[in-house]
Amino acid sequence: MGTGPGAVEHLSDRARDALASAQVIVGYTTYINLIKDLIGDREVISTGMTKEKERCQQAVEAAASGRRVAVVSSGDPGVYGMAGLVLEIMESSGLLGKLPVEVVPGITSATASAAKLGAPLMHDFAVISLSDLLTPWETIEARLEAAARSDFVVVLYNPASKKRTRQIEKAREILLLHRQPQTPVGIVKNTAREKESVIITTLDCMTEHSIDMLSTVIVGNSSTRRAGDFIITPRGYRI
Amino acid sequence: MGTGPGAVEHLSDRARDALASAQVIVGYTTYINLIKDLIGDREVISTGMTKEKERCQQAVEAAASGRRVAVVSSGDPGVYGMAGLVLEIMESSGLLGKLPVEVVPGITSATASAAKLGAPLMHDFAVISLSDLLTPWETIEARLEAAARSDFVVVLYNPASKKRTRQIEKAREILLLHRQPQTPVGIVKNTAREKESVIITTLDCMTEHSIDMLSTVIVGNSSTRRAGDFIITPRGYRI
Repeated sequence: MGTGPGAVEHLSDRARDALASAQVIVGYTTYINLIKDLIGDREVISTGMTKEKERCQQAVEAAASGRRVAVVSSGDPGVYGMAGLVLEIMESSGLLGKLPVEVVPGITSATASAAKLGAPLMHDFAVISLSDLLTPWETIEARLEAAARSDFVVVLYNPASKKRTRQIEKAREILLLHRQPQTPVGIVKNTAREKESVIITTLDCMTEHSIDMLSTVIVGNSSTRRAGDFIITPRGYRI
Repeated sequence: MGTGPGAVEHLSDRARDALASAQVIVGYTTYINLIKDLIGDREVISTGMTKEKERCQQAVEAAASGRRVAVVSSGDPGVYGMAGLVLEIMESSGLLGKLPVEVVPGITSATASAAKLGAPLMHDFAVISLSDLLTPWETIEARLEAAARSDFVVVLYNPASKKRTRQIEKAREILLLHRQPQTPVGIVKNTAREKESVIITTLDCMTEHSIDMLSTVIVGNSSTRRAGDFIITPRGYRI
Protein backbone atom coordinates (compact mmCIF):
# COMPACT_ATOMS: atom_id res chain seq x y z
CA MET A 1 0.00 0.00 0.00
CA GLY A 2 1.05 3.57 -0.75
CA THR A 3 0.83 6.40 1.72
CA GLY A 4 1.37 9.12 -0.87
CA PRO A 5 4.05 11.79 -0.44
CA GLY A 6 4.99 12.98 3.03
CA ALA A 7 3.18 11.83 6.12
CA VAL A 8 -0.58 11.31 6.27
CA GLU A 9 -1.92 14.42 4.54
CA HIS A 10 -2.24 12.63 1.19
CA LEU A 11 -3.27 9.22 2.54
CA SER A 12 -6.41 7.88 0.85
CA ASP A 13 -9.37 6.43 2.73
CA ARG A 14 -8.67 3.01 1.20
CA ALA A 15 -5.04 3.12 2.39
CA ARG A 16 -6.11 4.27 5.85
CA ASP A 17 -8.52 1.31 6.10
CA ALA A 18 -5.87 -1.14 4.89
CA LEU A 19 -3.42 0.17 7.46
CA ALA A 20 -6.04 0.09 10.24
CA SER A 21 -6.92 -3.55 9.59
CA ALA A 22 -3.34 -4.87 9.41
CA GLN A 23 -1.87 -6.95 12.23
CA VAL A 24 1.70 -6.49 11.02
CA ILE A 25 3.13 -3.40 9.30
CA VAL A 26 6.26 -3.73 7.18
CA GLY A 27 8.36 -0.91 5.74
CA TYR A 28 11.51 1.12 5.39
CA THR A 29 12.29 2.70 8.76
CA THR A 30 11.94 6.30 7.53
CA TYR A 31 8.43 5.67 6.14
CA ILE A 32 7.32 3.78 9.21
CA ASN A 33 8.32 6.77 11.33
CA LEU A 34 6.19 9.09 9.18
CA ILE A 35 3.04 7.10 9.99
CA LYS A 36 3.84 5.91 13.52
CA ASP A 37 0.79 7.63 15.01
CA LEU A 38 -1.43 5.43 12.85
CA ILE A 39 0.40 2.24 13.83
CA GLY A 40 0.22 2.45 17.59
CA ASP A 41 1.55 -0.61 19.37
CA ARG A 42 1.07 -3.14 16.55
CA GLU A 43 3.90 -5.35 15.32
CA VAL A 44 6.30 -3.57 12.96
CA ILE A 45 8.97 -5.09 10.71
CA SER A 46 11.20 -2.24 9.57
CA THR A 47 14.63 -2.35 7.96
CA GLY A 48 17.08 0.02 6.30
CA MET A 49 17.08 1.27 2.76
CA THR A 50 18.83 -1.49 0.83
CA LYS A 51 16.96 -4.30 2.59
CA GLU A 52 13.77 -4.21 0.51
CA LYS A 53 13.97 -7.86 -0.56
CA GLU A 54 14.38 -9.06 3.02
CA ARG A 55 11.47 -6.88 4.14
CA CYS A 56 9.15 -8.27 1.48
CA GLN A 57 10.21 -11.84 2.26
CA GLN A 58 9.41 -11.31 5.94
CA ALA A 59 6.07 -9.77 4.96
CA VAL A 60 5.13 -12.75 2.79
CA GLU A 61 6.18 -15.17 5.56
CA ALA A 62 4.03 -13.31 8.08
CA ALA A 63 1.06 -13.43 5.69
CA ALA A 64 1.65 -17.13 5.01
CA SER A 65 1.49 -17.75 8.76
CA GLY A 66 -2.05 -16.37 8.75
CA ARG A 67 -1.56 -12.76 9.74
CA ARG A 68 -2.91 -9.70 7.94
CA VAL A 69 0.08 -7.71 6.69
CA ALA A 70 0.46 -4.20 5.25
CA VAL A 71 3.66 -3.48 3.30
CA VAL A 72 3.98 0.28 3.31
CA SER A 73 5.61 2.36 0.55
CA SER A 74 5.79 6.11 0.41
CA GLY A 75 4.17 7.48 -2.77
CA ASP A 76 2.65 4.70 -4.90
CA PRO A 77 3.81 1.12 -4.26
CA GLY A 78 3.58 0.28 -7.97
CA VAL A 79 6.03 2.95 -9.18
CA TYR A 80 9.55 1.72 -8.36
CA GLY A 81 8.00 0.52 -5.08
CA MET A 82 7.40 -2.75 -3.27
CA ALA A 83 4.33 -4.07 -5.14
CA GLY A 84 6.29 -5.98 -7.77
CA LEU A 85 8.74 -7.46 -5.30
CA VAL A 86 5.93 -8.74 -3.05
CA LEU A 87 4.15 -10.36 -6.01
CA GLU A 88 7.40 -11.89 -7.31
CA ILE A 89 8.23 -13.36 -3.91
CA MET A 90 4.68 -14.72 -3.55
CA GLU A 91 4.99 -16.27 -7.02
CA SER A 92 8.33 -17.93 -6.32
CA SER A 93 6.97 -19.27 -3.02
CA GLY A 94 3.94 -20.77 -4.81
CA LEU A 95 1.60 -18.48 -2.86
CA LEU A 96 0.21 -16.37 -5.71
CA GLY A 97 -3.49 -17.21 -6.12
CA LYS A 98 -3.54 -18.90 -2.71
CA LEU A 99 -3.01 -15.97 -0.34
CA PRO A 100 -5.23 -12.93 -0.95
CA VAL A 101 -3.26 -9.83 -1.95
CA GLU A 102 -4.27 -6.30 -2.95
CA VAL A 103 -2.19 -3.41 -4.24
CA VAL A 104 -3.51 -0.16 -2.73
CA PRO A 105 -2.40 2.81 -4.84
CA GLY A 106 -1.07 6.11 -3.51
CA ILE A 107 -0.26 9.54 -4.93
CA THR A 108 3.11 9.14 -6.63
CA SER A 109 5.94 11.72 -6.59
CA ALA A 110 5.44 12.59 -10.26
CA THR A 111 1.99 14.06 -9.71
CA ALA A 112 2.59 15.28 -6.14
CA SER A 113 5.67 17.20 -7.33
CA ALA A 114 3.84 18.42 -10.43
CA ALA A 115 1.10 19.85 -8.20
CA LYS A 116 3.69 21.87 -6.27
CA LEU A 117 5.10 23.22 -9.56
CA GLY A 118 1.76 24.14 -11.15
CA ALA A 119 0.82 22.01 -14.15
CA PRO A 120 3.87 20.60 -15.94
CA LEU A 121 2.26 17.20 -16.72
CA MET A 122 -0.69 18.37 -18.79
CA HIS A 123 0.76 16.60 -21.79
CA ASP A 124 2.43 13.23 -22.49
CA PHE A 125 5.27 12.44 -20.09
CA ALA A 126 7.93 9.82 -19.49
CA VAL A 127 8.93 8.63 -16.02
CA ILE A 128 12.58 7.54 -15.83
CA SER A 129 14.61 6.42 -12.82
CA LEU A 130 18.27 7.47 -13.00
CA SER A 131 19.33 4.71 -10.60
CA ASP A 132 21.61 2.29 -12.44
CA LEU A 133 21.88 -0.15 -9.54
CA LEU A 134 19.42 -2.58 -11.17
CA THR A 135 19.27 -1.22 -14.74
CA PRO A 136 22.15 -0.90 -17.25
CA TRP A 137 23.03 2.76 -17.78
CA GLU A 138 22.82 2.27 -21.58
CA THR A 139 19.11 1.43 -21.24
CA ILE A 140 18.51 4.56 -19.19
CA GLU A 141 20.42 6.70 -21.69
CA ALA A 142 18.42 5.28 -24.60
CA ARG A 143 15.17 6.14 -22.79
CA LEU A 144 16.36 9.67 -21.99
CA GLU A 145 17.34 10.13 -25.64
CA ALA A 146 13.99 8.78 -26.94
CA ALA A 147 11.94 10.87 -24.49
CA ALA A 148 13.96 14.01 -25.25
CA ARG A 149 13.70 13.59 -29.02
CA SER A 150 9.96 12.96 -29.10
CA ASP A 151 9.15 15.90 -26.83
CA PHE A 152 7.85 14.10 -23.75
CA VAL A 153 7.83 16.02 -20.49
CA VAL A 154 10.42 14.04 -18.50
CA VAL A 155 10.06 13.09 -14.83
CA LEU A 156 13.26 11.88 -13.18
CA TYR A 157 13.00 9.63 -10.11
CA ASN A 158 16.10 8.77 -8.03
CA PRO A 159 18.03 11.55 -9.80
CA ALA A 160 21.08 11.41 -7.53
CA SER A 161 22.45 10.16 -4.24
CA LYS A 162 25.59 10.98 -2.27
CA LYS A 163 27.58 8.49 -4.33
CA ARG A 164 25.63 8.77 -7.56
CA THR A 165 26.05 12.27 -9.01
CA ARG A 166 27.18 11.69 -12.60
CA GLN A 167 23.78 10.48 -13.90
CA ILE A 168 21.91 13.76 -13.50
CA GLU A 169 24.71 15.63 -15.29
CA LYS A 170 24.55 13.16 -18.16
CA ALA A 171 20.73 13.33 -18.29
CA ARG A 172 20.95 17.11 -18.62
CA GLU A 173 23.46 16.77 -21.48
CA ILE A 174 21.20 14.35 -23.37
CA LEU A 175 18.13 16.54 -22.88
CA LEU A 176 20.07 19.63 -24.05
CA LEU A 177 20.73 17.92 -27.39
CA HIS A 178 17.00 18.13 -28.16
CA ARG A 179 15.64 20.92 -25.98
CA GLN A 180 16.32 24.64 -25.45
CA PRO A 181 18.61 25.63 -22.54
CA GLN A 182 15.78 27.84 -21.22
CA THR A 183 13.34 24.88 -20.92
CA PRO A 184 11.69 25.14 -17.48
CA VAL A 185 12.74 22.56 -14.91
CA GLY A 186 11.21 21.95 -11.49
CA ILE A 187 13.05 20.34 -8.59
CA VAL A 188 10.86 19.26 -5.68
CA LYS A 189 12.49 17.87 -2.57
CA ASN A 190 10.83 16.30 0.48
CA THR A 191 7.33 16.72 -1.01
CA ALA A 192 4.80 17.34 1.77
CA ARG A 193 7.41 16.72 4.46
CA GLU A 194 9.35 19.02 6.72
CA LYS A 195 11.99 20.96 4.79
CA GLU A 196 10.00 20.71 1.56
CA SER A 197 11.68 22.75 -1.15
CA VAL A 198 10.35 23.72 -4.57
CA ILE A 199 12.76 25.20 -7.11
CA ILE A 200 11.92 26.39 -10.60
CA THR A 201 14.96 26.73 -12.83
CA THR A 202 16.02 25.93 -16.40
CA LEU A 203 17.56 22.92 -18.12
CA ASP A 204 20.74 24.91 -18.53
CA CYS A 205 21.07 25.72 -14.82
CA MET A 206 19.39 22.76 -13.15
CA THR A 207 22.53 21.09 -11.84
CA GLU A 208 23.59 24.27 -10.03
CA HIS A 209 20.89 23.36 -7.50
CA SER A 210 21.08 20.63 -4.88
CA ILE A 211 19.48 17.43 -6.23
CA ASP A 212 19.44 14.34 -4.01
CA MET A 213 17.65 11.03 -3.54
CA LEU A 214 14.63 12.75 -2.02
CA SER A 215 14.24 15.01 -5.07
CA THR A 216 11.98 14.61 -8.08
CA VAL A 217 13.01 16.53 -11.21
CA ILE A 218 10.51 17.51 -13.92
CA VAL A 219 11.86 18.78 -17.26
CA GLY A 220 9.33 20.56 -19.49
CA ASN A 221 8.64 19.80 -23.15
CA SER A 222 9.08 22.32 -25.99
CA SER A 223 5.84 24.17 -25.06
CA THR A 224 6.31 24.26 -21.28
CA ARG A 225 6.60 27.79 -19.98
CA ARG A 226 7.01 29.63 -16.76
CA ALA A 227 4.03 31.63 -15.47
CA GLY A 228 4.70 33.52 -12.25
CA ASP A 229 5.70 31.01 -9.59
CA PHE A 230 4.47 28.09 -11.69
CA ILE A 231 5.36 25.92 -14.68
CA ILE A 232 2.62 25.19 -17.19
CA THR A 233 2.67 22.72 -20.09
CA PRO A 234 -0.30 23.84 -22.21
CA ARG A 235 -2.67 21.07 -23.25
CA GLY A 236 -3.54 23.03 -26.37
CA TYR A 237 -6.73 24.91 -25.51
CA ARG A 238 -7.06 28.43 -26.94
CA ILE A 239 -7.26 30.73 -23.94
CA MET B 1 -8.15 19.20 -6.86
CA GLY B 2 -8.15 15.52 -7.72
CA THR B 3 -10.53 13.01 -6.20
CA GLY B 4 -8.61 9.97 -7.40
CA PRO B 5 -10.29 7.19 -9.35
CA GLY B 6 -13.91 6.31 -8.68
CA ALA B 7 -15.91 7.96 -5.94
CA VAL B 8 -14.46 8.78 -2.53
CA GLU B 9 -12.55 5.60 -1.63
CA HIS B 10 -9.25 7.01 -2.90
CA LEU B 11 -9.81 10.61 -1.83
CA SER B 12 -6.88 11.99 0.19
CA ASP B 13 -7.27 13.87 3.46
CA ARG B 14 -5.91 17.01 1.82
CA ALA B 15 -8.47 16.78 -0.99
CA ARG B 16 -11.28 16.12 1.50
CA ASP B 17 -10.29 19.25 3.45
CA ALA B 18 -10.09 21.33 0.27
CA LEU B 19 -13.54 20.15 -0.78
CA ALA B 20 -14.98 20.74 2.70
CA SER B 21 -13.76 24.34 2.84
CA ALA B 22 -14.96 25.36 -0.65
CA GLN B 23 -17.97 27.64 -1.08
CA VAL B 24 -18.37 26.79 -4.76
CA ILE B 25 -17.62 23.43 -6.39
CA VAL B 26 -16.95 23.26 -10.12
CA GLY B 27 -16.70 20.14 -12.28
CA TYR B 28 -17.84 17.84 -15.03
CA THR B 29 -21.34 16.61 -14.22
CA THR B 30 -20.35 12.93 -13.97
CA TYR B 31 -17.60 13.64 -11.42
CA ILE B 32 -19.79 15.98 -9.40
CA ASN B 33 -22.36 13.18 -9.12
CA LEU B 34 -19.71 10.80 -7.76
CA ILE B 35 -19.00 13.11 -4.82
CA LYS B 36 -22.44 14.63 -4.27
CA ASP B 37 -22.66 13.32 -0.71
CA LEU B 38 -19.62 15.41 0.19
CA ILE B 39 -21.03 18.55 -1.47
CA GLY B 40 -24.39 18.80 0.26
CA ASP B 41 -26.32 21.93 -0.61
CA ARG B 42 -23.40 24.13 -1.58
CA GLU B 43 -23.26 25.97 -4.90
CA VAL B 44 -22.24 23.77 -7.82
CA ILE B 45 -21.17 24.79 -11.33
CA SER B 46 -21.27 21.69 -13.47
CA THR B 47 -21.20 21.35 -17.25
CA GLY B 48 -20.86 18.62 -19.86
CA MET B 49 -17.72 17.00 -21.12
CA THR B 50 -16.51 19.37 -23.81
CA LYS B 51 -17.14 22.50 -21.74
CA GLU B 52 -13.95 22.39 -19.67
CA LYS B 53 -12.78 25.87 -20.70
CA GLU B 54 -16.12 27.44 -19.78
CA ARG B 55 -16.09 25.63 -16.42
CA CYS B 56 -12.62 26.88 -15.55
CA GLN B 57 -13.49 30.42 -16.62
CA GLN B 58 -16.54 30.38 -14.36
CA ALA B 59 -14.41 29.00 -11.54
CA VAL B 60 -11.83 31.77 -11.90
CA GLU B 61 -14.60 34.40 -12.03
CA ALA B 62 -16.14 33.01 -8.85
CA ALA B 63 -12.75 33.07 -7.12
CA ALA B 64 -12.10 36.62 -8.35
CA SER B 65 -15.39 37.68 -6.77
CA GLY B 66 -14.01 36.58 -3.39
CA ARG B 67 -15.39 33.08 -3.03
CA ARG B 68 -13.43 29.95 -2.19
CA VAL B 69 -13.69 27.61 -5.16
CA ALA B 70 -12.78 23.93 -5.68
CA VAL B 71 -12.39 22.76 -9.29
CA VAL B 72 -12.80 19.01 -9.16
CA SER B 73 -11.13 16.51 -11.49
CA SER B 74 -11.35 12.76 -11.27
CA GLY B 75 -7.89 11.17 -10.90
CA ASP B 76 -5.13 13.78 -10.71
CA PRO B 77 -5.94 17.32 -11.91
CA GLY B 78 -2.41 17.75 -13.30
CA VAL B 79 -2.51 14.77 -15.70
CA TYR B 80 -4.60 15.82 -18.71
CA GLY B 81 -6.86 17.50 -16.11
CA MET B 82 -8.01 20.99 -15.22
CA ALA B 83 -4.95 22.31 -13.34
CA GLY B 84 -3.23 23.75 -16.41
CA LEU B 85 -6.36 25.32 -17.80
CA VAL B 86 -7.17 27.07 -14.49
CA LEU B 87 -3.62 28.45 -14.25
CA GLU B 88 -3.65 29.58 -17.90
CA ILE B 89 -6.97 31.38 -17.46
CA MET B 90 -5.73 33.03 -14.26
CA GLU B 91 -2.59 34.14 -16.10
CA SER B 92 -4.47 35.61 -19.06
CA SER B 93 -6.81 37.43 -16.64
CA GLY B 94 -3.85 38.93 -14.78
CA LEU B 95 -4.83 37.06 -11.60
CA LEU B 96 -1.82 34.75 -11.24
CA GLY B 97 0.13 35.79 -8.14
CA LYS B 98 -2.83 37.89 -6.94
CA LEU B 99 -5.42 35.22 -6.11
CA PRO B 100 -4.17 32.30 -3.99
CA VAL B 101 -4.30 28.96 -5.83
CA GLU B 102 -3.24 25.44 -4.90
CA VAL B 103 -3.15 22.26 -6.98
CA VAL B 104 -4.22 19.31 -4.80
CA PRO B 105 -2.98 16.05 -6.31
CA GLY B 106 -4.98 12.82 -6.60
CA ILE B 107 -4.27 9.22 -7.51
CA THR B 108 -4.09 9.16 -11.31
CA SER B 109 -5.48 6.40 -13.56
CA ALA B 110 -2.01 5.15 -14.48
CA THR B 111 -1.21 4.03 -10.96
CA ALA B 112 -4.78 3.16 -9.93
CA SER B 113 -5.11 0.91 -12.98
CA ALA B 114 -1.65 -0.52 -12.43
CA ALA B 115 -2.64 -1.49 -8.87
CA LYS B 116 -5.62 -3.45 -10.23
CA LEU B 117 -3.30 -5.27 -12.65
CA GLY B 118 -0.55 -6.13 -10.15
CA ALA B 119 2.71 -4.28 -10.75
CA PRO B 120 3.19 -3.32 -14.41
CA LEU B 121 4.82 0.08 -13.65
CA MET B 122 7.82 -1.10 -11.66
CA HIS B 123 10.10 0.20 -14.39
CA ASP B 124 10.28 3.33 -16.58
CA PHE B 125 7.01 4.19 -18.26
CA ALA B 126 5.56 6.64 -20.76
CA VAL B 127 2.09 8.14 -20.42
CA ILE B 128 0.50 8.99 -23.78
CA SER B 129 -2.99 10.29 -24.55
CA LEU B 130 -4.39 8.96 -27.82
CA SER B 131 -6.80 11.88 -28.13
CA ASP B 132 -5.90 13.89 -31.23
CA LEU B 133 -8.46 16.62 -30.60
CA LEU B 134 -5.79 19.01 -29.30
CA THR B 135 -2.58 17.27 -30.44
CA PRO B 136 -1.50 16.45 -34.03
CA TRP B 137 -1.66 12.69 -34.62
CA GLU B 138 1.91 12.77 -36.00
CA THR B 139 3.19 13.93 -32.60
CA ILE B 140 1.33 11.10 -30.86
CA GLU B 141 2.67 8.54 -33.35
CA ALA B 142 6.23 9.77 -32.86
CA ARG B 143 5.87 9.35 -29.10
CA LEU B 144 4.39 5.87 -29.44
CA GLU B 145 7.27 4.92 -31.72
CA ALA B 146 9.92 6.35 -29.37
CA ALA B 147 8.39 4.71 -26.29
CA ALA B 148 8.01 1.35 -28.06
CA ARG B 149 11.57 1.37 -29.39
CA SER B 150 13.23 2.26 -26.10
CA ASP B 151 11.28 -0.32 -24.10
CA PHE B 152 9.15 1.91 -21.91
CA VAL B 153 6.06 0.39 -20.35
CA VAL B 154 3.32 2.39 -22.13
CA VAL B 155 0.21 3.78 -20.45
CA LEU B 156 -2.51 4.94 -22.84
CA TYR B 157 -5.03 7.54 -21.64
CA ASN B 158 -8.13 8.39 -23.71
CA PRO B 159 -7.52 5.30 -25.87
CA ALA B 160 -10.83 5.47 -27.73
CA SER B 161 -14.29 6.98 -27.79
CA LYS B 162 -17.43 6.17 -29.76
CA LYS B 163 -16.19 8.26 -32.69
CA ARG B 164 -12.45 7.75 -32.18
CA THR B 165 -11.59 4.07 -32.72
CA ARG B 166 -8.74 4.14 -35.27
CA GLN B 167 -6.07 5.46 -32.84
CA ILE B 168 -5.92 2.39 -30.61
CA GLU B 169 -5.58 0.11 -33.65
CA LYS B 170 -2.72 2.24 -34.95
CA ALA B 171 -1.05 2.35 -31.51
CA ARG B 172 -1.13 -1.45 -31.40
CA GLU B 173 0.47 -1.64 -34.86
CA ILE B 174 3.30 0.70 -33.85
CA LEU B 175 3.95 -1.18 -30.61
CA LEU B 176 3.98 -4.51 -32.48
CA LEU B 177 6.88 -3.27 -34.62
CA HIS B 178 9.09 -3.29 -31.52
CA ARG B 179 7.45 -5.69 -29.08
CA GLN B 180 6.41 -9.35 -29.07
CA PRO B 181 2.76 -10.19 -29.86
CA GLN B 182 2.57 -12.01 -26.49
CA THR B 183 3.51 -8.85 -24.51
CA PRO B 184 1.04 -8.59 -21.61
CA VAL B 185 -1.53 -5.80 -21.82
CA GLY B 186 -3.97 -4.70 -19.13
CA ILE B 187 -7.24 -2.89 -19.83
CA VAL B 188 -8.89 -1.33 -16.79
CA LYS B 189 -12.28 0.28 -17.18
CA ASN B 190 -14.24 2.32 -14.63
CA THR B 191 -11.49 2.01 -12.01
CA ALA B 192 -13.00 1.90 -8.51
CA ARG B 193 -16.46 2.63 -9.89
CA GLU B 194 -19.52 0.45 -10.46
CA LYS B 195 -19.00 -1.87 -13.41
CA GLU B 196 -15.23 -1.85 -12.93
CA SER B 197 -13.61 -4.32 -15.31
CA VAL B 198 -10.04 -5.58 -15.38
CA ILE B 199 -8.82 -7.53 -18.42
CA ILE B 200 -5.39 -9.04 -18.91
CA THR B 201 -4.65 -9.86 -22.53
CA THR B 202 -1.78 -9.55 -25.01
CA LEU B 203 -0.62 -6.90 -27.46
CA ASP B 204 -1.71 -9.19 -30.29
CA CYS B 205 -5.27 -9.57 -29.00
CA MET B 206 -5.88 -6.30 -27.15
CA THR B 207 -8.25 -4.74 -29.68
CA GLU B 208 -10.55 -7.76 -29.53
CA HIS B 209 -11.69 -6.35 -26.17
CA SER B 210 -13.92 -3.36 -25.60
CA ILE B 211 -11.81 -0.23 -25.06
CA ASP B 212 -13.57 3.10 -24.49
CA MET B 213 -13.03 6.56 -23.05
CA LEU B 214 -13.30 5.26 -19.49
CA SER B 215 -10.53 2.70 -20.11
CA THR B 216 -6.83 2.91 -19.32
CA VAL B 217 -4.56 0.58 -21.28
CA ILE B 218 -1.13 -0.51 -19.99
CA VAL B 219 1.26 -2.27 -22.39
CA GLY B 220 4.18 -4.12 -20.80
CA ASN B 221 7.85 -3.73 -21.73
CA SER B 222 10.06 -6.58 -22.97
CA SER B 223 10.40 -8.07 -19.44
CA THR B 224 6.77 -7.75 -18.35
CA ARG B 225 5.20 -11.12 -17.69
CA ARG B 226 1.96 -12.61 -16.55
CA ALA B 227 1.89 -14.21 -13.09
CA GLY B 228 -1.47 -15.74 -12.19
CA ASP B 229 -4.09 -13.03 -12.32
CA PHE B 230 -1.47 -10.30 -12.38
CA ILE B 231 1.03 -8.55 -14.64
CA ILE B 232 4.51 -7.92 -13.24
CA THR B 233 7.30 -5.82 -14.74
CA PRO B 234 10.36 -6.95 -12.77
CA ARG B 235 12.49 -4.15 -11.34
CA GLY B 236 15.53 -6.39 -11.56
CA TYR B 237 15.93 -7.92 -8.11
CA ARG B 238 17.10 -11.54 -7.98
CA ILE B 239 14.29 -13.45 -6.30
